[in-house]
Amino acid sequence: MNTQLQISHVRNVLIRLEETIIFALIERTQFLQNPPIYEPRRFGDVLEEESLVGFMLLECERSHAKVRRYASPDELPFFAGLPEPILPPLHLVDNPLHANTININSAIRATYEQEIVPHICREGDDDQYGSAAVCDVACLQALSKRIHYGKFVAESKFREAPERLLPAMNEQDSDSLMAAITNQIEEQVLQRVEAKARLYTQELASASTSPTVAPETIVDIYRSWIIPMNKQVQVEYLLQRNAESA
Amino acid sequence: MNTQLQISHVRNVLIRLEETIIFALIERTQFLQNPPIYEPRRFGDVLEEESLVGFMLLECERSHAKVRRYASPDELPFFAGLPEPILPPLHLVDNPLHANTININSAIRATYEQEIVPHICREGDDDQYGSAAVCDVACLQALSKRIHYGKFVAESKFREAPERLLPAMNEQDSDSLMAAITNQIEEQVLQRVEAKARLYTQELASASTSPTVAPETIVDIYRSWIIPMNKQVQVEYLLQRNAESA
Repeated sequence: MNTQLQISHVRNVLIRLEETIIFALIERTQFLQNPPIYEPRRFGDVLEEESLVGFMLLECERSHAKVRRYASPDELPFFAGLPEPILPPLHLVDNPLHANTININSAIRATYEQEIVPHICREGDDDQYGSAAVCDVACLQALSKRIHYGKFVAESKFREAPERLLPAMNEQDSDSLMAAITNQIEEQVLQRVEAKARLYTQELASASTSPTVAPETIVDIYRSWIIPMNKQVQVEYLLQRNAESA
Repeated sequence: MNTQLQISHVRNVLIRLEETIIFALIERTQFLQNPPIYEPRRFGDVLEEESLVGFMLLECERSHAKVRRYASPDELPFFAGLPEPILPPLHLVDNPLHANTININSAIRATYEQEIVPHICREGDDDQYGSAAVCDVACLQALSKRIHYGKFVAESKFREAPERLLPAMNEQDSDSLMAAITNQIEEQVLQRVEAKARLYTQELASASTSPTVAPETIVDIYRSWIIPMNKQVQVEYLLQRNAESA
């Protein structure tokens, strides 16, 4: 029984995803920024006009699509035109979502490559292109899952108090929805992420093998990008949910 | 400049791989054992006679082979018959290895599926097959890299004191080589892994979202499987190195 899609489990899933994201970011910081891996066509035309990271992400999504990763409502691909699943359809007992066409992965990818990598990794090129790109794929997939979980968060907030959200939904008023979904939990998330990041980077720093990322840097990523993009998904979900049920 | 292949960096690489392995194992323990994902043909014939995990590992290796992952002397594939690289060859300035045909990945995979997963994950089936299999691929690749790093460790030990190892190498005497490469560093590794595992599982335990793995369990994996298999690679490397230079 897959409990990850149940609304009652939203909070636990989000908390557990913090480890996944922090571990993935720490792993990426082993390597320098390595700008060439983000340049389309840098390695010639063999990578389907993509950068090395884009190509490895595309190849990963192709293989995961075959085993129906994107049949699950909490998984969204970065690329279109992926292969059909070769496994029979999943029986999703409880998909609680009422609208699910929102996919902001192109914005997530641009933010990750242009903002997050330069923020967490030291400048320079260490020739570890493949290893860095493997880490990038893991980071992008974890960030995408966390940010798009906003759909489940929004559905949960709607079920708790539909009357509080329906007026703004009916008027398709994004600003009011953004105000209505904003709550103090954000500050708790940031505090918890900072405590975890401090813990998980502590041993790395003391082992003094290589410089690691500062806990504050990981908190920045939550504050500046993950939480805002998650809220954007929540608002878009509520706008779409209403249109659907109208 | 890729320093990861330099003999002077062997110790740092091994220490840093501890984080990668511990993170990967912790990620896997989110999910139950899920025995069906290890059964060949469980999902019909579409997965090329493989289990779900085997198929996802194979697909991952196919895409990584295209971007020449296995051209690097510290990366060994689990599968044969992978595609040729589509990128031009790497210029490996400093490959310090003198022999590199040793590949014990089939033993690593069997050990991981039959011993390590039942050791770290709770029994049962949570339907999270895809997510668990993605973690398995990350664990298998990290374990393979760590265990096959024995080649670099053995090369380092040889360069430090060739006269100490040459007699047993000349006589192809595995038992003497095993005795000669064994040192007190193993106990230090276990202590460091225990400290790290204790740190990294601490927050997870206190967050009480889901039960996590005990630090001792991760130490067991190092003691029972990673270190012995790494030493096996060291011995095989020295046997092969001698034959090559003879």
